[in-house]
Amino acid sequence: MRILVLGADGYLGWPTALYLSNKGHEVGVVDNFARRQYDYEMGVDSLVPIAQLQRRVQVWKEVSGKELACWAGDLVDPDFTHRVIKEFRPEAVVHFAEQRSAPYSMIDQKHAVYTQYNNVINTLNVLYAIMDVDPSIHLVKLGTMGEYGTPNIDIEEGFIEITHKGRTDVLPFPKNPHSFYHLSKVHDSHNIQFCCRVWGLRSTDLNQGVVYGQETDETMQHPELLTRFDYDGVFGTVLNRFVVQAVTGHPLTVYGKGGQTRGTLDIRDTQACVELACLNPPDQGEFRVFNQFTEQFSVLDFANMVADAYDGTVKIEHTELVRVEKEEHYYNAVHTRLLDLGLEPHLLTAETLQSMLAMVERFKDRVDPKAFTATVNWRHATNYLPTSGSPLPR
Amino acid sequence: MRILVLGADGYLGWPTALYLSNKGHEVGVVDNFARRQYDYEMGVDSLVPIAQLQRRVQVWKEVSGKELACWAGDLVDPDFTHRVIKEFRPEAVVHFAEQRSAPYSMIDQKHAVYTQYNNVINTLNVLYAIMDVDPSIHLVKLGTMGEYGTPNIDIEEGFIEITHKGRTDVLPFPKNPHSFYHLSKVHDSHNIQFCCRVWGLRSTDLNQGVVYGQETDETMQHPELLTRFDYDGVFGTVLNRFVVQAVTGHPLTVYGKGGQTRGTLDIRDTQACVELACLNPPDQGEFRVFNQFTEQFSVLDFANMVADAYDGTVKIEHTELVRVEKEEHYYNAVHTRLLDLGLEPHLLTAETLQSMLAMVERFKDRVDPKAFTATVNWRHATNYLPTSGSPLPR
Repeated sequence: MRILVLGADGYLGWPTALYLSNKGHEVGVVDNFARRQYDYEMGVDSLVPIAQLQRRVQVWKEVSGKELACWAGDLVDPDFTHRVIKEFRPEAVVHFAEQRSAPYSMIDQKHAVYTQYNNVINTLNVLYAIMDVDPSIHLVKLGTMGEYGTPNIDIEEGFIEITHKGRTDVLPFPKNPHSFYHLSKVHDSHNIQFCCRVWGLRSTDLNQGVVYGQETDETMQHPELLTRFDYDGVFGTVLNRFVVQAVTGHPLTVYGKGGQTRGTLDIRDTQACVELACLNPPDQGEFRVFNQFTEQFSVLDFANMVADAYDGTVKIEHTELVRVEKEEHYYNAVHTRLLDLGLEPHLLTAETLQSMLAMVERFKDRVDPKAFTATVNWRHATNYLPTSGSPLPR
Repeated sequence: MRILVLGADGYLGWPTALYLSNKGHEVGVVDNFARRQYDYEMGVDSLVPIAQLQRRVQVWKEVSGKELACWAGDLVDPDFTHRVIKEFRPEAVVHFAEQRSAPYSMIDQKHAVYTQYNNVINTLNVLYAIMDVDPSIHLVKLGTMGEYGTPNIDIEEGFIEITHKGRTDVLPFPKNPHSFYHLSKVHDSHNIQFCCRVWGLRSTDLNQGVVYGQETDETMQHPELLTRFDYDGVFGTVLNRFVVQAVTGHPLTVYGKGGQTRGTLDIRDTQACVELACLNPPDQGEFRVFNQFTEQFSVLDFANMVADAYDGTVKIEHTELVRVEKEEHYYNAVHTRLLDLGLEPHLLTAETLQSMLAMVERFKDRVDPKAFTATVNWRHATNYLPTSGSPLPR
């Protein structure tokens, strides 16, 4: 089928575009390279060197014989968004194209406003373009498990049946997100659900857990096909950072007690989930939510697993809690809908960890240990980032 | 106390500022006159002629001896917002300054994006300014009962205790809003709640029902103190429109069956509720929600009451449903917290309706019946407005 991947130059967008292409779909890719801009701003870089998008597209054609249609532009621009969707006429739009770092959104006012503006407005533009070009286009939207927060009841997939004062209804699951970034995803979810209800659009909201891993069947076919790998305190996800800390002989830094529990998944499962959502679209008018993760771990679980998988020398250090969150809490989230569609999870085995450790070993000369620091404290409305050299303007 | 009223040139902002001033508070007023701009765009006007803000402020000083500090500017500008809050140093900020019409937000892409951008970003700017200037400033934010939609269970005030699979938590009441405007208020509520939790700010979210009425003790003291009164299909609220239709000999136009039930209140109760919220602030870190309405009526109830209050000649006409909503549904919303604080409601009596009818009678030469038309259909992503003379740009 024809699938347009928005944000296809990013950590997950790129390997997902290749996976879909490899599976025989006609794939278009779109990016504004904002993610690369954040690296310049923060003074950090992907551990794994990454080629430019146009070069990657060319290499993929050489390796696989398959073409990717490619657009460079900003989805906050309504005309660009409309033009791309009109020109490519996808059957599904996979939307990764958002600022996706919680700490980045919490740096200061400018970054909070940017995150909500960018994410909410570009999604509105995508919805209007779909409505105008072809309301049957299926919007597969990347959300986050962080939309739910950490309620003291089991988290359902998007909706919950509530019985209250003798009456019953099925309503959106209440949201309690943890950052201005997570809030932007909650706003998106409400906007998309509304468009499905009122305009009859159809959409799948993939509330994804924390992703780990880097190599996929497609990216391993050529060094210039590799996707980025972030380990810094702003864009790095926690397991990726622990692996880099272990390999470079640094203690694994756990914020607070490390009891913060989250849903997680392997990068290869992200790819598979997106394809499953595309191949099994909802009915016209339906807004459905899949909780896209395969296992639940606490931050301390991750640290212990990395320590065990490496060698006996890894230390775990508990540092100040920079986010405002519970260090220990109940957490149990349902995640059966993607399994029902046929997802076969890659679980977090010692083997997976060892392949990540080996990958990091290959690039360890590129590691900048300064980047490990959690530079953004949730309690401060303005954070001054050492890695960017000077305070950012308010 | 020192109270800053944002959006003080509007239908409710202006009389509320006067009420607070009359009660002895030191009041500052802020507006960017966007509401007057919408009139130019739509080719409509307030039934009651309204003086310019600076003139109103001067007349109020002449009539009452009380001064209002006055700023003209846009809260989407972070520097302006910060400066006003820093200069006035309020104890409470009452935030009316949002695009508040559901049909306006549904005109087309440009108006949807404008509404969400304006409302969400200006509230973020207010939150950051409060955090920077003085986190003890109490944000009294105008929300809407429309954030809840029309669930099949009783609506609580902001939060609901949910027991699910043997566990219990108190969580934000699920939201199912009816327009891009109502969605913007849901986004605001989530953002504000987050800032209370993470930064320890304090806020009251006033989920207001549909307001009717025009005259208040303060505005009646001078013709140039009157507040606006809208009866058009985009900004007019339903009871106000019915009163104008009755007085000018037009049928009362009810969309669909008219079973749509909403919470409503008298403009004088809006004033009192806002002061009650200010005088009884929440604890630092607390985000509380009051459902600000006094009675529930269906649209058809309103039409029948106006017909009864006028004379025997009023006709009720059922026209096409332009919003995507249930024509008949369960609706029961709790609204005890403001009563607990001492609100004494002005209920919708025949006397209230007759005073509204008399007021409209005075200005009936200014009525433009073309403005009654509901020009915005929820099912269309692009609406072309006859009153604006030509299609608006996409």
